[in-house]
Amino acid sequence: MGLVVQKYGGSFLENAEKVSKVARRVIEAYKEGHSVVVVVSAQGSTTDELLEKAAEINPKPSNREIDVLLSAGEQIAIALLAMAIEREGHHAVSLTGYQAGIFTDSNYGSSRIKSVDAERIIKELDKKNIVVVAGFQGWNKYDDITTFGRCGSDTTAVALAAALKADRCEMYTDVAGVYTANPRIVSDAAKLKEISYDEMLELVNLGEKNVLHNRAVELARKYNVNLIVKSSLDDDPGTIVKEVGTVERMLVRGVARDNDIARIAVIGVEDKPGVAFRLFSLLAKEKICIDIILQSIGRDNTKDISFTVKRENLNKTLDVINANLGVIGAAEVKHSDKYSKVSIVGAGMVNNAGVAATMFEALYDAGINIHMITTSEIKISVLVDVQDADKAVKVVHDKFNLGEVK
Amino acid sequence: MGLVVQKYGGSFLENAEKVSKVARRVIEAYKEGHSVVVVVSAQGSTTDELLEKAAEINPKPSNREIDVLLSAGEQIAIALLAMAIEREGHHAVSLTGYQAGIFTDSNYGSSRIKSVDAERIIKELDKKNIVVVAGFQGWNKYDDITTFGRCGSDTTAVALAAALKADRCEMYTDVAGVYTANPRIVSDAAKLKEISYDEMLELVNLGEKNVLHNRAVELARKYNVNLIVKSSLDDDPGTIVKEVGTVERMLVRGVARDNDIARIAVIGVEDKPGVAFRLFSLLAKEKICIDIILQSIGRDNTKDISFTVKRENLNKTLDVINANLGVIGAAEVKHSDKYSKVSIVGAGMVNNAGVAATMFEALYDAGINIHMITTSEIKISVLVDVQDADKAVKVVHDKFNLGEVK
Repeated sequence: MGLVVQKYGGSFLENAEKVSKVARRVIEAYKEGHSVVVVVSAQGSTTDELLEKAAEINPKPSNREIDVLLSAGEQIAIALLAMAIEREGHHAVSLTGYQAGIFTDSNYGSSRIKSVDAERIIKELDKKNIVVVAGFQGWNKYDDITTFGRCGSDTTAVALAAALKADRCEMYTDVAGVYTANPRIVSDAAKLKEISYDEMLELVNLGEKNVLHNRAVELARKYNVNLIVKSSLDDDPGTIVKEVGTVERMLVRGVARDNDIARIAVIGVEDKPGVAFRLFSLLAKEKICIDIILQSIGRDNTKDISFTVKRENLNKTLDVINANLGVIGAAEVKHSDKYSKVSIVGAGMVNNAGVAATMFEALYDAGINIHMITTSEIKISVLVDVQDADKAVKVVHDKFNLGEVK
Repeated sequence: MGLVVQKYGGSFLENAEKVSKVARRVIEAYKEGHSVVVVVSAQGSTTDELLEKAAEINPKPSNREIDVLLSAGEQIAIALLAMAIEREGHHAVSLTGYQAGIFTDSNYGSSRIKSVDAERIIKELDKKNIVVVAGFQGWNKYDDITTFGRCGSDTTAVALAAALKADRCEMYTDVAGVYTANPRIVSDAAKLKEISYDEMLELVNLGEKNVLHNRAVELARKYNVNLIVKSSLDDDPGTIVKEVGTVERMLVRGVARDNDIARIAVIGVEDKPGVAFRLFSLLAKEKICIDIILQSIGRDNTKDISFTVKRENLNKTLDVINANLGVIGAAEVKHSDKYSKVSIVGAGMVNNAGVAATMFEALYDAGINIHMITTSEIKISVLVDVQDADKAVKVVHDKFNLGEVK
């Protein structure tokens, strides 16, 4: 008996039948004697529908009003799930982000949780209510509604689990857990029993977007939340995400692929301090997230700076750079959206020199050309041609015998 | 220059085009130099769609959760209207019932405003923002969302106008104002320039439901709010609703018809104290609203009690009575939903003996049978066969020459 936080994404609440199914799974945990807090996203396509409505009225609405609009989506979802739980004869109470005490900063549209006041939730749990909380939303110092940006319900769940000192935080997905590679690409991909927060963070960043949101994993690590990624379809125990010291250090935990990247190369910038700062602060102002950054020595005492962004941001990025060519002082700007990023992640590789070489060997044997390489302590990423990406994942997965992971 | 509260119902916000149209009308008032607060209902059929969703999941959801669900409808509407105002280059800020400081009692689904703390609205008006407030919703002492029941946005508008000491409160409708009769029934029905709160209250109760909500008129009378019913389609000044002392006392201000009634007759109850109390407190417990009540002397030292309810409540009412026949002690219960109520309203009739007789004469001349009569100081109502109702309205309207009202 303890306190369990469960999180269900919007696809689990698409229609009445699915909402009732989630209700029954929630009640199962309640019947086992747990106090249960459920965090949900807006139903299925609600968020997109609301954004469409907005776009018809104003192509550039303020973020404040978008937050008022979108938060209504989760509000609908919590009410419906609470009703479904009531229907099964149990007591439920739905709470908006404000009611759940989720206090955020004031970056409308992409706010971050500053603190959680769990008093109301605790009061409701004490009354033996199942508490249904709207994910993705909070409240700021101006008494305004804020939202966290896409996938923010994961963050809500982890933040509540931390504030409530929950025994576990279960993230329901449509897969059984975290795999050594995407099973749709690699047929013998193995489900991991456990993974460290750090490895999970790298995997999140590396394109396994459906599994867990980055910010949620960071929070879980910070507050040592017992995070479990599991399927809502069966009783498989899923994958436990925990502290690096408590999981077996594997050389390579998994292989990830990200096709949603575009590479920009700013060539021949002056080799003096402040160039990178000017370039990336211009992009940050436009809220363009940068993934990989590489700076190399160019010709004639100049530097080349290459970096990747999401494909949807390619044009915007080029616009910013071209509008500021004078400030940046580049000889040439190149770009391509024909690359994919393939990465291996594993907390064990930090102490093992041969990992990178083994990965490159696998790619070489398969005749796959590498366009860019970056490494961190627990990750090695390469850019390859987009048509080679799936093959690259397979051969690397094979090379490290990841199909045999148990 | 002053402060104007405008209220638009959901039919004015049905689609992007209509939302933009409302935005432009709001901005017109703002450009005239007024501070503007706009109260809106949920878009078009949103409320019904949300209720359908709920019904699929739980045929009897708790009122608390219905309120969470339905209030999302207004939240969507305020965000979209604020975006439309932004689109036209003006500053707008949307506020939910809570943010607007609308504090209510805890009757989920049919709550009443207890107080309004207008601090936030005033702050936004001081910043020259157009303030868009969600109608129909508030907040209670448990920190829960409450709603007012259908048409509650009228009440929000009047309550805010009272709290803000607004110069006027404009209720936009799809008609040009209040008429001497429904123009769809009586072709020469005349638009009234003004009407007293009391008369308006009786008209509201008498089936002109689209014009103004009862509770809103009561509030307007209590706080002496300068209420204007007008069309959003043109610049007609509409009908001003004001204190009885300040409007010309007309014998008959208008004729109303209500087809949505069912009559129940409880026959042969014992003639002793407490019978009416027992009967109507049972119905009140089930939240069944009673309209007309008539008690007459029955046979053998018994009494007959007749009353009317809304048609949708007929079966529920009969269930309650039949389940409590022992307590009520009736010999027989009769009912009919084949009647309509036709009423004349006028603050002047209190001092004029002939009004009732004139009405009955008109009906007699037209061969219309009267089943029940009730009178108040400013109203006379009769029940007639439903198929006679429109004709009754016409002949009474004619008899009092209401088509000549200016």
